[in-house]
Amino acid sequence: MKTTALILIDVQKGFDDPVWGTRNNLDAEENIVQLLNEWRKQGRPVIHIQHRSTDPNSPLHRNCAGFEFKSEGQPKDGEAVFRKEVNSAFIGTSLETHLRANGILNLVIVGLTTDHCVSTTTRMAGNLGFATTLVSDATATFDRRGLDGENITADEIHRVHLASLNGEFCQVLSTAEVLATLRSTEQCGTTN
Amino acid sequence: MKTTALILIDVQKGFDDPVWGTRNNLDAEENIVQLLNEWRKQGRPVIHIQHRSTDPNSPLHRNCAGFEFKSEGQPKDGEAVFRKEVNSAFIGTSLETHLRANGILNLVIVGLTTDHCVSTTTRMAGNLGFATTLVSDATATFDRRGLDGENITADEIHRVHLASLNGEFCQVLSTAEVLATLRSTEQCGTTN
Repeated sequence: MKTTALILIDVQKGFDDPVWGTRNNLDAEENIVQLLNEWRKQGRPVIHIQHRSTDPNSPLHRNCAGFEFKSEGQPKDGEAVFRKEVNSAFIGTSLETHLRANGILNLVIVGLTTDHCVSTTTRMAGNLGFATTLVSDATATFDRRGLDGENITADEIHRVHLASLNGEFCQVLSTAEVLATLRSTEQCGTTN
Repeated sequence: MKTTALILIDVQKGFDDPVWGTRNNLDAEENIVQLLNEWRKQGRPVIHIQHRSTDPNSPLHRNCAGFEFKSEGQPKDGEAVFRKEVNSAFIGTSLETHLRANGILNLVIVGLTTDHCVSTTTRMAGNLGFATTLVSDATATFDRRGLDGENITADEIHRVHLASLNGEFCQVLSTAEVLATLRSTEQCGTTN
């Protein structure tokens, strides 16, 4: 039960700031709550990553209210929290040491944003040898400007990034698929 | 002159194998040659990354002819070569140590493929604190299958990934822009 961790990336209030623009997957937090509830019910490890921006103008700067976790991703007593200053949760933190010390082999990743911190952390997780799952509908991103100045929608960015990550760095599954696997594993009494 | 390195990612014959599907930016190798020529002329550091796949079915497996560098990316005597087994050139290699030991602060990244090894290495380079430039027309990728089973063209993948990387992990510039900057820097006699 202890070898598969749920990793929440940057589920912080600052991402509700309008500065980020239009977001996709507005249900992501609801799906994260479903996964969190199941993880906690089964006593599996939950790990929270909190972005501590060094940019004083960022809504994720530690002096901003946006630095706080959203209510949906509030850590409970005993759950590990790691703070990072760059996109990857593995750079400048002891996350990798913590995972190896606790025998955690499998990571299920959710949070914000798909193409920045979630993608970077997923890539490093896979490359470091962890069996990694990315939950397609429990992550989201924002519209971005292409090099040609044209807008690219959050949905398109999300779709392309999941295609690039799937099968190369991780397995991409939906919340329902992860929950079904988790519940069948629990019923079978295995220790994964 | 020694603080800005050109990093060639996986410019290997194996990427000519039809197994990868349809590619974009067929001029990427020609642009890489232009950059290489200027770097060598100015005596700046050139670093080659070679992917050594652990998958015996990959055209980049070390026993395959595809493991060899393409003629356009053939290392010259004295140029550093690092071999990697995962996407990131910083994982399982001494690349970071080499860069820091040699006072290299700025990285200009080219090679294959935009959304896999190039993106992953660019993300880590930026997150590790290197001032990183990604050359838009000196990298390329292949069509991939979306989660919905639909084809996503290499051009669309390329465009979306450059938009996600630019300004967050690196500055994205064209070969012409990089060459113009490099030549003006040389003329000004600065030491960058």
